[in-house]
Amino acid sequence: MSATKKIKAAIVGYGNIGRYAVEALLASPDFELVGVVRRDATNIPYELRPYHVVSSIRELGQVDVALLCTPTRLVEETAREILAEGIRTVDSFDIHTDIVSLRRSLGEVARQHGVVSVIASGWDPGSDSVVRTLMEAIVPKGITYTNFGPGMSMGHTVAVKAIKGVRKALSMTIPTGTGIHRRMVYIELEQGFRAEDVISAIKSDEYFAHDETHVSIVDDVEALIDMGHGVHMTRKGVSGVTQNQLLEFNMKINNPALTAQILVSVARASMRLAPGCYTMQEIPVIDLLPGDREEWIRKLC
Amino acid sequence: MSATKKIKAAIVGYGNIGRYAVEALLASPDFELVGVVRRDATNIPYELRPYHVVSSIRELGQVDVALLCTPTRLVEETAREILAEGIRTVDSFDIHTDIVSLRRSLGEVARQHGVVSVIASGWDPGSDSVVRTLMEAIVPKGITYTNFGPGMSMGHTVAVKAIKGVRKALSMTIPTGTGIHRRMVYIELEQGFRAEDVISAIKSDEYFAHDETHVSIVDDVEALIDMGHGVHMTRKGVSGVTQNQLLEFNMKINNPALTAQILVSVARASMRLAPGCYTMQEIPVIDLLPGDREEWIRKLC
Repeated sequence: MSATKKIKAAIVGYGNIGRYAVEALLASPDFELVGVVRRDATNIPYELRPYHVVSSIRELGQVDVALLCTPTRLVEETAREILAEGIRTVDSFDIHTDIVSLRRSLGEVARQHGVVSVIASGWDPGSDSVVRTLMEAIVPKGITYTNFGPGMSMGHTVAVKAIKGVRKALSMTIPTGTGIHRRMVYIELEQGFRAEDVISAIKSDEYFAHDETHVSIVDDVEALIDMGHGVHMTRKGVSGVTQNQLLEFNMKINNPALTAQILVSVARASMRLAPGCYTMQEIPVIDLLPGDREEWIRKLC
Repeated sequence: MSATKKIKAAIVGYGNIGRYAVEALLASPDFELVGVVRRDATNIPYELRPYHVVSSIRELGQVDVALLCTPTRLVEETAREILAEGIRTVDSFDIHTDIVSLRRSLGEVARQHGVVSVIASGWDPGSDSVVRTLMEAIVPKGITYTNFGPGMSMGHTVAVKAIKGVRKALSMTIPTGTGIHRRMVYIELEQGFRAEDVISAIKSDEYFAHDETHVSIVDDVEALIDMGHGVHMTRKGVSGVTQNQLLEFNMKINNPALTAQILVSVARASMRLAPGCYTMQEIPVIDLLPGDREEWIRKLC
């Protein structure tokens, strides 16, 4: 790619991940941020003033790839619309059990419009999935454990907030090994509710009923929130017929910053793929990097 | 691939890695071992009696892919010959600084004969390179340290053996962090040589002059040899503009068993690639696994 031909990227959705995606795009010399798509395009935060903020991607002119930073449940609908415009999409859809059906559904639209969609491209699913796949390939027999945290679980926090009597909430995921997690839940109580009733409702909720769960009442949930997260993956198994091969992958990271960076790197790779829908495991990792393959082989092999 | 259509693989070279490659192929239901190519095909160890042992791959009939288990310095010549027969090759060539030129040279032959060659497919270079590339993509600024060991270094052991006065030798690589390694060298002394002269010659050898090196005289080197090895890779850096992203990859493994298993998994992936020469970073990791992509996405995403 010539130095003057930058990848034209749009960001769709401007929550936590969207904010970090703007930073990651601006830090990547091979990209140009053509604009941010928000439902309410009149609401332009100070840091977005230098950029186009629009309510439809059609207003942005030529866009090579859209980074979807919407809530996960809006990904499919949003991606279908954008793919139909002939624009590539990249998302960090994170409902593990629905990835195969999303891949089929978006694959059909993508092929129909001759474009590329890369899904589930956060860190889990995403880069962790690449590592799990590599571990499976080099140690084909055995068990992989993925231990998350300590860190804030978005899904569990939302589930707690939906319970009556909870004003604000934070659910932390604490790894106790072998893929088993403790849930540490911090809530502010709504006036007029009894702590023991609310705690009991949380513990019997489907999201928490199967895990060791501890609930604490606090004065100020906001003061506890930190976007650090982590993962500890292990695999012990067999290569050929040789036992006790031990593999491990760990991260301690800022969660939305990592997700946003992965979206940017995957957006770059999407420029090199044939039309269709892919997960990160289906992309050569070298295509996540800018520029010439030979340079990276020289540096990283 | 149908259950009856197995990948026909040959093993070329029958040293340590070749032995483990036979085991790994036999443990992989989608492969058929069509034979082993040795320089001296009359020398058939007991465990190879059920298989064809030949001195030229041409004697084996149809072969889809050859796993090169020769010494690294014979890889290029051997691969060129086999690619010219229209047979795919996979190797664990491990001279990091020569990978780019090997890729060019074998790429030309491979494209000319419409076949695939995958090079440098051991664990380092190889699977570690995939992890280093992924780390670079998700944390683009920062430093990656690759710390090897504790484990036997083949290259350093050969270098010690070449020094006058050394009868037998073992050089262990000990990681001391930030990619710096200590060399622990164990030798049996040849009669008539003075320990201090031999030790001084080892320490001033190009292989050891730049590292902290300790040499011990022992009675029996063979009794110390263990094929366990390890790696500890770290990367601390920046995603977007967010600092202090911490990544780590560790292995404790049987060295030739892992290399052999990777050769088998990469041989499988070679069946799905367009003609040319590749490193592991250029292959979608999912293609290292047998069978249907969707099943693995469901399981590993």
